[in-house]
Amino acid sequence: MNPQLDKDGNLRHLLEIEGLGRDRVVQILDTAESLLPLTERAVKKLPLLRGRTVVNLFYEPSPRTRMTFELAAKRLSADVLNLDVDHSSARKGESLLDTLRNLEAMHMDMLVIRHPDSGAAHFFATHADPQVTVLNAGDGSHAHPTQALLDMFTIRQHKPDFAALTVAIVGDIAHSRVARSQIAALRLLGTGEIRVIAPHTLLPADIDRLGVKVFTDIDHGLRDADVVITLRLQRERMQGADLPGSQEYFRHYGVSSERLALASPDAIVMHPGPINRGVEIASDVADGPQSVILQQVTNGIAVRMAVMALTMGGERTAAQEPGT
Amino acid sequence: MNPQLDKDGNLRHLLEIEGLGRDRVVQILDTAESLLPLTERAVKKLPLLRGRTVVNLFYEPSPRTRMTFELAAKRLSADVLNLDVDHSSARKGESLLDTLRNLEAMHMDMLVIRHPDSGAAHFFATHADPQVTVLNAGDGSHAHPTQALLDMFTIRQHKPDFAALTVAIVGDIAHSRVARSQIAALRLLGTGEIRVIAPHTLLPADIDRLGVKVFTDIDHGLRDADVVITLRLQRERMQGADLPGSQEYFRHYGVSSERLALASPDAIVMHPGPINRGVEIASDVADGPQSVILQQVTNGIAVRMAVMALTMGGERTAAQEPGT
Amino acid sequence: MNPQLDKDGNLRHLLEIEGLGRDRVVQILDTAESLLPLTERAVKKLPLLRGRTVVNLFYEPSPRTRMTFELAAKRLSADVLNLDVDHSSARKGESLLDTLRNLEAMHMDMLVIRHPDSGAAHFFATHADPQVTVLNAGDGSHAHPTQALLDMFTIRQHKPDFAALTVAIVGDIAHSRVARSQIAALRLLGTGEIRVIAPHTLLPADIDRLGVKVFTDIDHGLRDADVVITLRLQRERMQGADLPGSQEYFRHYGVSSERLALASPDAIVMHPGPINRGVEIASDVADGPQSVILQQVTNGIAVRMAVMALTMGGERTAAQEPGT
Repeated sequence: MNPQLDKDGNLRHLLEIEGLGRDRVVQILDTAESLLPLTERAVKKLPLLRGRTVVNLFYEPSPRTRMTFELAAKRLSADVLNLDVDHSSARKGESLLDTLRNLEAMHMDMLVIRHPDSGAAHFFATHADPQVTVLNAGDGSHAHPTQALLDMFTIRQHKPDFAALTVAIVGDIAHSRVARSQIAALRLLGTGEIRVIAPHTLLPADIDRLGVKVFTDIDHGLRDADVVITLRLQRERMQGADLPGSQEYFRHYGVSSERLALASPDAIVMHPGPINRGVEIASDVADGPQSVILQQVTNGIAVRMAVMALTMGGERTAAQEPGT
Repeated sequence: MNPQLDKDGNLRHLLEIEGLGRDRVVQILDTAESLLPLTERAVKKLPLLRGRTVVNLFYEPSPRTRMTFELAAKRLSADVLNLDVDHSSARKGESLLDTLRNLEAMHMDMLVIRHPDSGAAHFFATHADPQVTVLNAGDGSHAHPTQALLDMFTIRQHKPDFAALTVAIVGDIAHSRVARSQIAALRLLGTGEIRVIAPHTLLPADIDRLGVKVFTDIDHGLRDADVVITLRLQRERMQGADLPGSQEYFRHYGVSSERLALASPDAIVMHPGPINRGVEIASDVADGPQSVILQQVTNGIAVRMAVMALTMGGERTAAQEPGT
Repeated sequence: MNPQLDKDGNLRHLLEIEGLGRDRVVQILDTAESLLPLTERAVKKLPLLRGRTVVNLFYEPSPRTRMTFELAAKRLSADVLNLDVDHSSARKGESLLDTLRNLEAMHMDMLVIRHPDSGAAHFFATHADPQVTVLNAGDGSHAHPTQALLDMFTIRQHKPDFAALTVAIVGDIAHSRVARSQIAALRLLGTGEIRVIAPHTLLPADIDRLGVKVFTDIDHGLRDADVVITLRLQRERMQGADLPGSQEYFRHYGVSSERLALASPDAIVMHPGPINRGVEIASDVADGPQSVILQQVTNGIAVRMAVMALTMGGERTAAQEPGT
């Protein structure tokens, strides 16, 4: 049983892309599209989640990701509480299950959870009361589904026919929950060809099962690509044994304008942010006409609003009563 | 003069249980009871404190306690601001009185204060302007009145006749503001017998004046108890000289299912949270049918809403004007 | 071109006092005056910024300043998000421009920025999209315009004829963005005489160009002053080479009641807060009848509301649509 869907196939939680099904993903993207104009208005507010309580439960510090969820929830009129948990002290203290039970006892309606351990969001959803929704804001190296959905939304804006696309993902595939979710989403949407470009040290062990073409040479991997997705290189990675240094990384795997010229002339370039200029991507590419990086940020709010609206919607929304 | 009550005996601040009087406590519990259904609704929102400003002024970090007050205030439609003060730097800096005067000058309506020094909330209330309400969210080893009130609320849900009850409090009585407030509340409500169970090292010097029966042997103390309240053991205490270690503590004072069998068959088990499983309480007891620990959490929101509604209510609420 | 004003001379950003013009400053003060009664009401709420998003982007920790902006924005019904950035880690990370572009992509309407580098707010305003407003909450030793405006507001409440006034500013002029903005505002309003009182080590190099009279002897400087403004002495300054110690500072430059007697009998005494009692100012002066320090705090909320209302106002407000 997939805990993400209720018995009628409606979205109950968002934990990972796997198992959502193509229709559900398209529904999320369509809902986000209908919400996008709202974010352009002066009054960026819908009453959909009025009186509902959303808690951002972050076991990893990520002020910007937290801000995108907080913004999405507030624009839907929810009450938002932020709970930053120091993971190192949390290990010694209360268990995840006790935390969940306490938040449920406070009648939180939605938990947005970010956690360094893969499976944390899944654990919450599996054990949550029926009236609680869990959104995965990144768990270990497992999944970051809202990031993948906003990436699909951005690709669809520019290139709606996924079957005709060649998408190349460049960077640290092994440790990237973003890449893992992107690949799953691209496959669900029937993408023509999915490529990953990385040194052997940054490829996951199960790469053969992911249904992608592997390139260790970026010049080969970018050739005729329609979409170039760069991944953020974690600084801790750069100082470790896996990589010789950020300049060295850029020389071998950075997306420069020369390299981008190998891709399709109308290729778009993406990055989940925040970018390391001159490491994963050259400044002139990040700021150039093919970059859609800032559109990704804008779309991220609409996609998160869509996921919140859909998971909290249906019967539960119908039960909504006016407070005053 | 008791600064908690105005000249007509209405609740103005909540600083401690002592001096509230039985009627006032019952009024708070009754108000909480009327608010409890709200927290079960989809739209958990009352307009009672709309346009009012509540500040959570925490000189001790306690994200969960802060969250319960933030939640209560937001569900009453107040604007909430969080101000975490590093107490060590605060010592060198601005005085409590200057902080109070500044918050008053910003026209804060309610200050929820948590402070490591006993008497801090009392100091604020004594010096506060007439239009400012002070709620004690825990001061030193003095008092934690909302915790005691939510505990009384929870007991009353299950066992409304306090005169017929034997209540046993197990743990570090000496350093516990929670125990001190619980004992005061139990006495106000005319509890039949109040017992404390602790080693000599964890009993306060003034224990004879508290009107309780003292047990150092938990097996004797639990016998035929109707309510078993376990206290949180502070980790700093476990590493200090007062206690030999957490396993040792559990062996002597932990509430196991074997020990709980000594109490009344329908006894309820309580804990202020967060629990240390296998230290103060066995896991099977914490999760068992006699545990009301999570009900305490739920009731805590309703009780805090009730206190906020009552202290901000009356004439001051009548003066409320619609903003739009 | 002054980025603070649009082509019709309306307030677009607030970066510094310089270049605002007298009429604009008077307009802000008049607007604040009309908003001041609101902050005294039970329901302190206007719908002016409903559905707008304000982000407090603080690269320097300053919980109290942040709170005043948060409070002003919430009382205008805006959604407020707080983003504290650790400046030391920010240096290595994302550039200011990337941060700005990301916040714009999230459709933030207003950025309140505090930064240790002079010119940071100016940089944001120069590069911001037309629909984004930037408010300077203090940048390096450059400017702190809302502080200066609330100070002018407070002076005007007591002594409306600036041309007839002698205003003395005492303290660390060299490192004070507050002093710099105060001097600019006092000049704009045509203050009769502006004096600064400081040891040579705490005077800026460009002091001759500021249009002020310099006194190193406080007894001379205070003589017949109508307004005495004390500045906060930064503790790091006291431990450095510029100053011999806080007792020594008070002996030479602290405002005691004896010294205040040298000023005009109805002189008012001001301080931006938080005060260091016995360093910049004696306790009996800070709490005495001539002190308007707490009125400054109250006025600060109204002035910040006024700046927010004016910068977000005009055509943009007219485009406002009701959400529900």
